[in-house]
Formats: sequence, C-alpha cells, structure tokens
Amino acid sequence: MADYEMFDLGDVVLQSQQTIRNAKMAYKTYGTLNAAKDNAIVYPTWYSGQHYENEWLISPEMALDPGKYFIIVPNMFGNGLSSSPSNTPEPMNKARFPKVTAYDNVRQQYRLVTEKFGIESLELVTGWSMGALQTYHWGALYPDMVKRILPFQGSAKCSRHNFVFLEGVRSALMADVAFADGFYETPPTKGIRAMARVYAGWGFSQAFYRQKLDLEMGYASLEDFLVGFWEGIFLPRDANNLLAMLWTWQNGDISKNELFKGDFPKALAAIKAKAIVMPASTDLYFPPEDNAIEVSHMPNAELRTIETVWGHFAGGPGTSPADIKVLDAALRELLAS
Amino acid sequence: MADYEMFDLGDVVLQSQQTIRNAKMAYKTYGTLNAAKDNAIVYPTWYSGQHYENEWLISPEMALDPGKYFIIVPNMFGNGLSSSPSNTPEPMNKARFPKVTAYDNVRQQYRLVTEKFGIESLELVTGWSMGALQTYHWGALYPDMVKRILPFQGSAKCSRHNFVFLEGVRSALMADVAFADGFYETPPTKGIRAMARVYAGWGFSQAFYRQKLDLEMGYASLEDFLVGFWEGIFLPRDANNLLAMLWTWQNGDISKNELFKGDFPKALAAIKAKAIVMPASTDLYFPPEDNAIEVSHMPNAELRTIETVWGHFAGGPGTSPADIKVLDAALRELLAS
Repeated sequence: MADYEMFDLGDVVLQSQQTIRNAKMAYKTYGTLNAAKDNAIVYPTWYSGQHYENEWLISPEMALDPGKYFIIVPNMFGNGLSSSPSNTPEPMNKARFPKVTAYDNVRQQYRLVTEKFGIESLELVTGWSMGALQTYHWGALYPDMVKRILPFQGSAKCSRHNFVFLEGVRSALMADVAFADGFYETPPTKGIRAMARVYAGWGFSQAFYRQKLDLEMGYASLEDFLVGFWEGIFLPRDANNLLAMLWTWQNGDISKNELFKGDFPKALAAIKAKAIVMPASTDLYFPPEDNAIEVSHMPNAELRTIETVWGHFAGGPGTSPADIKVLDAALRELLAS
Repeated sequence: MADYEMFDLGDVVLQSQQTIRNAKMAYKTYGTLNAAKDNAIVYPTWYSGQHYENEWLISPEMALDPGKYFIIVPNMFGNGLSSSPSNTPEPMNKARFPKVTAYDNVRQQYRLVTEKFGIESLELVTGWSMGALQTYHWGALYPDMVKRILPFQGSAKCSRHNFVFLEGVRSALMADVAFADGFYETPPTKGIRAMARVYAGWGFSQAFYRQKLDLEMGYASLEDFLVGFWEGIFLPRDANNLLAMLWTWQNGDISKNELFKGDFPKALAAIKAKAIVMPASTDLYFPPEDNAIEVSHMPNAELRTIETVWGHFAGGPGTSPADIKVLDAALRELLAS
C-alpha cells in the first residue's frame, strides 16, 4: 500500500525539448492545509532520495511541525516514484528517459502546489543537497510566491568541482559491463557498489573518518561501513534512475532558462525570499565558499555555516543529531520572522 | 635506450611473507657523489610516477642542484620499472604480484644506497605524496643516517579517509569486466578512464576548479581537461601496477613493522632528522590536520603549510610554479641548516 499520492501532469515538455508523456509526480503531504491556504511548505527530495527519506526533519517537536504547517514533499523526477527511467513505458524508458532539469522539476512542482491545492503563497521552501538546488529554483522562479527559503548543503548551480566529483561517480557505475548502456535486465551491482565506494570519500569529511564517527554510527569497521552504509544506500536504487538524477544535478543552474538566460547573478538577485543559506563547514562538494558567492548576490540572504565534521551529511537523513539541532533552530527562527 | 640503471636485489622477502624473486630496483642518479660520500639525497617516486617524473624539482637553479648534490631517485616497486606486476615473470606476475609495503621499498632503497654506493649518511630525503610516505619511513627506520627530511603533501600513515578515497579509485578500475581479475591481455581502458575521472575530483581543490585553473593549464574545457590531463595520466600505465601501488599506499604506516609494532607516535618520535613537513592547505586527501598530528610527535619537525588552491598538485610534477617556489625555498633553507 503506497504511502504517497500521484499527481497527473499530462505530457510535460522539458527544457531538453524532450517530452515525458503522461508524466506523474509522486508526493506526500504532512499536516493540514488551512482555510486561508497560507501555511504551506515545500520540501523537495535529494539525490536518489524519496519522500519518506525527508521525514526525519518533520515532527511536532521540530520547526517543520505538521500540526502547524502543511508540508508537501514532491518526489524528484528520476527517483523511482515520480516519472523515472524505471517506471516509464517504452520507448522513453531506461536509458532513453528524457533529460530533466531542476527547473523542469520545480515548474511541475508549482503546478502541483497551485493546480492541485490552490496554494498561492508558500511560507517556506527548504531542502538538502539537490533539494537545496530545487529550493533555489523556487526562489528565483516564483519570487512573489515564496516568502522564505532555507537551502542546506546545496547550491544554486552545480560547481565545476562538483561536476567532476559526479563524473567519477557516473564513470564508476558505467564501467560495469552489466550496465549495458542502460538496457540491463538485472542490476549492474558491481558498478553500483563501485559508485558507492567513490561516493563514500565525498559524503563525509576527512575529520569524520579521522574521528571514526562511522564506528560510532554502529559499524564494526571501515569496511563494514563501506558495505553496510554506502553500498546499502545505492544497491536498492535503479542504475538508470541514479544516472538520470545525476544528470539533473550536473546540469543544475537557476539561471539556465528563458528568465535569466545564463545570467547567474541576475537569477540570484531575483530571489526576494528571506533566506538562510546553510552550508556545512566540511562539505567536500558543496563548500561554503560557493554559497558565499551566491549570498553576495541575494538581496535578503544570510550565510550561516554549520560548523561540523559531518561534511555533506551534516544535513543528511538524521545522521548527525547535533547538526540537526542547528538546522532545526534556523528553520524555526526563519519561520518566525 | 633506458635512461636509468638497475640494481639487482636478489630474492626479497617482504612484510607480507611473500617473495619477489630476482627483484630489481630501477633508479637514476643526478650529479656526482663526492669523495666523502656526504652529499647524497634520496628522492623516491610518487603513486604511478617514474623517476623522470621527479625531475622537475632537480635543476642547477634549484635546491636539488645536481652540481652540488648526488641525487638518487629510486623507482617504487610496482611502478613498471622496478619489479612490478607488469615485468615479473610467471607465476608472480600480474594479479599474483606480491603485496609490497612502503617499508619494503625503503629497506631495499637502503641497500641500494649503502651496498651500491657505500653511502652512510644522507643530507636529505624528500618526496611528494607516496614519495613523502617513503620519506617518513627513511626518517623512522634510519634515524642516525638521515639528517633532514622534507615530505610534501603526504603522510606517515594512510588515513582512514585517504583509504576510502582509494577504495573509490580501486573499485572504479576493477568494475571493468576487461580487468578480468588482473589477468587481462589488453588493458581495461574503460576502468582506467573511470578511475581517472574519480581521481580528478580529488587531485585538485574545489577552488582550483572554481578559478578554472584547468583552462589556464591549456585545456579548452573541463571535459578536455578530464580526458587530456586525467585520462592521459593513467591510460599509459598498467592496471595491475596501479593496483599494486594503490595497495602499497593504503597499507602505508611507518609503525607497522618489527621496530614500532604499531605504535605510531613512537615511530614518529624516532625520527631524529630535522624536518619540514609541507602539506598543501587545500589538499583533499592529505589535509594539513593529519600532518599536524604527526609533527606533534616528531622531536625536530616544523609544519609549514603551503597556502594554495592547487590542492594535492601543489607539489605535483611542475604544475604550479608559485607553489614550487615555496617548496624549493624550503628545501634550500633546510639543506642550509
């Protein structure tokens, strides 16, 4: 029994001039939309994540309180629930699934929010990692609708270094002959395990490993962590889906569209929302420096770096309790302002 | 016509309790050993590097002046010139090549230095990256022989994070079915290209890519750099050789031997040599923090971090002229002291 709902988008023409026919957006909501329809929050998913993997930040004890807010978690295209390589019928399935941008995702999320729920104003958009990328898009594409944004451990554009990191991930997966150019019948597990090991060095910081926090997470050894945590994250996920979202990530840029025509500072300047931008001090692929550049162009934004050794996973799905407190407090402060 | 010489080591029993039969050490010397035999420098090679790739630091204009010093560059086992998977006869060839540690390398380099040249004192040992790992070993294993060491962008032990980074590199290479468990007849180029892309994110810093220094190096685009520079580094090298040296790297630890029995602080404390330890501020796999811990245990060492955006390649083969000046000045200062 699915714990989420589906929004039928019809035929969606993408920035890539490809079409997802009978496109679907899977989503889940938490809490109740009030009569004024002014208590809504959008909280998009991260790379490979599905809505339930966002739930660690939603709780009556936390800023994202479903007793107060109506929280919509839209699943990103390619994540296996919304239209994806793994669930799209021939001929647009598997490696032929269209290229989807974060812009495309947010344009369709807007339709969900407005057409399905009749919401005209958002209290907040927030998200981790690629969820942050979508958060920035919401701010730049719908400046009069989005009151606040809190992107954490993400950026408004995939940096060149981040792109290179992802090239390593992508190449490791595709090196497996079982991948078969995406037309596999059984999963290319060797490639997925390889990409997991590539990812492992990036996801947590040097200091995290130096302090052996992997062992404190309940793993018996580094190898136990690499298999149990990292290979465990990616093995259940479909290889083409992973590559589709990776393309979305690598091509993320709030200015690559008809509104901003590649003018990145202009796109950032268009974000009217009150913003707290929260990088992690030790994030290896979203370093604070990139966010500092972004914030310098945003009219109403504060850079607030989380000092942590957890690297990118400072805002990961519930892994670092201390960092979550800092994040949650910032969300509470922003929502109260 | 080879530009190097070979030292016959006979049968070498390794820490792994395996034997390289008729082991060979390839080396090249620069300059002339004086009559007192007190002007010698040892300068070991880095991961995958061969002696000629160390030559950028040797010049009459530089500290490592062959007009003054007798500079010995021993090739690391596994690098394709010294005994390696690629040049060892059956049955110890290819994937069956014995596991060699940095300790094993330095013990045999000692034989070269003493048996071949009759040298009893070294003015300096220095090296980059895995060359630095060997440098630390020289200091700890031969404290009364080595007057000075200058390890740059390396460490005395492979950190847990560094180990994980290398797991990604290794897994990407081995994901290629053409690797055939090491018994390939033609090179597993897809895997080598994948490992090159994995490496690319680690070798230079986020800031390097942000500042587009790859383009200043003469590449037309990021993709041009990934293929031309990174795939270009690794494609000519043998996959089993790369994995043999990777094992050496992952298992590097100056204390894992009969002298120090795993007591890492004790091994560091044994280094009598006057040392300048030079990490690069933005090195992603040899961060300065690891060297700071090491230096705190070394009786006669200074930590001197090179402030740079070039990451690990601050001390790379001639890539960053400004950083080379800093390194060369430190070498000059140390040699004069």
